[in-house]
Amino acid sequence: MANINDNYLKLPGSYLFAEIAHRITNYRKAHADADIIRLGIGDVTRPLPMASIRAMHAAVDEMADAATFRGYGPEQGYDFLRESIAEHSYAMRGVSIEPDEIFISDGAKSDCGNIQEIFGQDNRIAITDPVYPVYLDTNVMAGRTGELQENGYFSGVTYLPCRAENHFLPQLPKEHVDLIYLCSPNNPTGAAMSRSDLAAWVAYAREQEAVILFDAAYEAYIEAGNADIPHSIYEIDGAKEVAIEFRSFSKTAGFTGTRCGYVVLPKTVKGRAKDGRHVPLHPLWNRRHTTKFNGTSYIVQRGAAAIYTEEGQAQVRALIAYYMENARIIREGLQKAGLTVYGGVHSPYIWLKTPGSMLSWDFFDQLLQEVQVIGTPGVGFGPCGEGYFRLTAFGDRERTQEAVERIRALA
Amino acid sequence: MANINDNYLKLPGSYLFAEIAHRITNYRKAHADADIIRLGIGDVTRPLPMASIRAMHAAVDEMADAATFRGYGPEQGYDFLRESIAEHSYAMRGVSIEPDEIFISDGAKSDCGNIQEIFGQDNRIAITDPVYPVYLDTNVMAGRTGELQENGYFSGVTYLPCRAENHFLPQLPKEHVDLIYLCSPNNPTGAAMSRSDLAAWVAYAREQEAVILFDAAYEAYIEAGNADIPHSIYEIDGAKEVAIEFRSFSKTAGFTGTRCGYVVLPKTVKGRAKDGRHVPLHPLWNRRHTTKFNGTSYIVQRGAAAIYTEEGQAQVRALIAYYMENARIIREGLQKAGLTVYGGVHSPYIWLKTPGSMLSWDFFDQLLQEVQVIGTPGVGFGPCGEGYFRLTAFGDRERTQEAVERIRALA
Repeated sequence: MANINDNYLKLPGSYLFAEIAHRITNYRKAHADADIIRLGIGDVTRPLPMASIRAMHAAVDEMADAATFRGYGPEQGYDFLRESIAEHSYAMRGVSIEPDEIFISDGAKSDCGNIQEIFGQDNRIAITDPVYPVYLDTNVMAGRTGELQENGYFSGVTYLPCRAENHFLPQLPKEHVDLIYLCSPNNPTGAAMSRSDLAAWVAYAREQEAVILFDAAYEAYIEAGNADIPHSIYEIDGAKEVAIEFRSFSKTAGFTGTRCGYVVLPKTVKGRAKDGRHVPLHPLWNRRHTTKFNGTSYIVQRGAAAIYTEEGQAQVRALIAYYMENARIIREGLQKAGLTVYGGVHSPYIWLKTPGSMLSWDFFDQLLQEVQVIGTPGVGFGPCGEGYFRLTAFGDRERTQEAVERIRALA
Repeated sequence: MANINDNYLKLPGSYLFAEIAHRITNYRKAHADADIIRLGIGDVTRPLPMASIRAMHAAVDEMADAATFRGYGPEQGYDFLRESIAEHSYAMRGVSIEPDEIFISDGAKSDCGNIQEIFGQDNRIAITDPVYPVYLDTNVMAGRTGELQENGYFSGVTYLPCRAENHFLPQLPKEHVDLIYLCSPNNPTGAAMSRSDLAAWVAYAREQEAVILFDAAYEAYIEAGNADIPHSIYEIDGAKEVAIEFRSFSKTAGFTGTRCGYVVLPKTVKGRAKDGRHVPLHPLWNRRHTTKFNGTSYIVQRGAAAIYTEEGQAQVRALIAYYMENARIIREGLQKAGLTVYGGVHSPYIWLKTPGSMLSWDFFDQLLQEVQVIGTPGVGFGPCGEGYFRLTAFGDRERTQEAVERIRALA
């Protein structure tokens, strides 16, 4: 009989958001008319920028005419989009990235999940705790970890604890690691790494010949004009030899259901082959991308490129300002309610300490049952998330205000 | 230093279509004004069905309004699309497939490439020769093969030769294999497997406890009313225990640049875990799909679902009839020119024997240089493709006729 990939059996059965959905369904059975406010999953709610809407209508029309119809595009993405990204996301911040170092995809989840394929099995992985589950789960599936232990950790993985004591910033590991997943501004904690924080990691990676997998999906939420928090890891000298960056249109421009993201892989990043040669990673990722992917929808790429027009930039800024005002409302409202609150400044995520020594899931149940507000239990992101709780700023303004009022009434 | 996945280094450097592009570029340098006709890559040219165009315009408009905006959808696809597929592609052919056995994706290339991940490293793979390169390359990358040998074959793989002598139909292997890639109607040979051909494979898979990975991307090209050529492998009794099917909107509805496909994985297909347990593959693929993919663009899914309306069905039939008339023109025209021609009946691919004992690439060069027609050298699909050449029926009618005239003039 065909053998399965046994690594899949190491993964715990119940996925965080499935468990949340399950508890909500159960609650609804007894309270069919409950007015539930969801600030749990990190999904946006505002319409797409009009510039993107118009560009997609035009692209759909192109598909209706043989003279302008588009079949297979380049797997790596159209030049019009790669060039706009190189200019707006990098050159305008003083970073030189070539368009052919940018690989357009259907989103950062795919990219963060797929990138590990170009690396060998025997690399030591470092991830923060708490963490976006995709980094870890995809390495479990690939067999780069041992079993899940009783303490909630997989053996063979270096976990970097992020707690209030270290301002939710990961410390350099004491042992050697090969691949380091970093996310800043962070999901779920909302912590943003400063220039010097990131420089320390780049220095570590250069010294240890490690590769940093840098998830910058939330860079658009960094306060405008703040010079101390890099939008890209390539703002740090030397990063172009040791870092791969992930970006997404999901949270920048509301593309969670439209699907577009990209990987930046500078040609100068290398890994070691078994024979000791130092091999550039760019051709490996290019081979992976062109063999297992056939490009992002032309229509979607046109929608994404439209955010780089003057009109699009203004609309994206307005979108982010809307969500960041929500973040302010949540942060300040909960602080007034006496809760200890983190994040929500350069990030759409608010990370709060549960009251007293309450467990994450107990707080989830309390909020659901007493005030019908949904958040995400911190422990769902890793053992160090226990005692924390995540709320997101992606909701409707009025509903967000209402949720804060309800939580304050509870406190 | 981070170690690379050394399996990538086993892959030969130059990819088929890159080499073709390279030769065309060189030719253009000396002949800037050449009127080249491309019947090489399998890419469509006709506009999308109007039903899909209208559905995508409507979906784009939904994205412009907070009341109808769609964020993250189910990773596996929206019910409206999964249910339409279950009804139209399966129930209407007497096959019972549940909507939750259908996983919507961004296309069959991704699916055919990703499916191997849920299987163990130690499975023996069987592929046809010639073959769509993705099946093989993704297994090389995963380490399921040895090195590329001088004869053009990777060690550790079971190749199933498909030549004129066996009507381009793979014979059952003499040794045991675990995973079998089949494609019917076939890319590149155009051969279509009959009910009894497929039944023999299902019987083999059941006896050997193997899994068939069945690529049905071209099923829409099977002649209407032909009862002997199954559109789905599940039309064969017993296949639901041993087969996974891949489908695509690319060639059915012109979605090569719009991107949508799907995997059918019945809950009854099983593999073996290391401890000997028989494990259903459905939850493994579901875990893979939900961990490494965030769903296909909502706009695209609406476009895909529109082909199942009465209007959409008529438009898709017209699209396929257009291409199949091209296929007839190529097939009959080249036969009249004295060439030996296969395929082009239930398939948009024409597979022709090169004149005399001419090598595939020599014929490519001759067609390019003497009559400026581009095709694909058969050897690019595997050693058994040597001496063959692929033309596709996806071109414009007039240009297709012109290409045939030119080749006839040459002969």
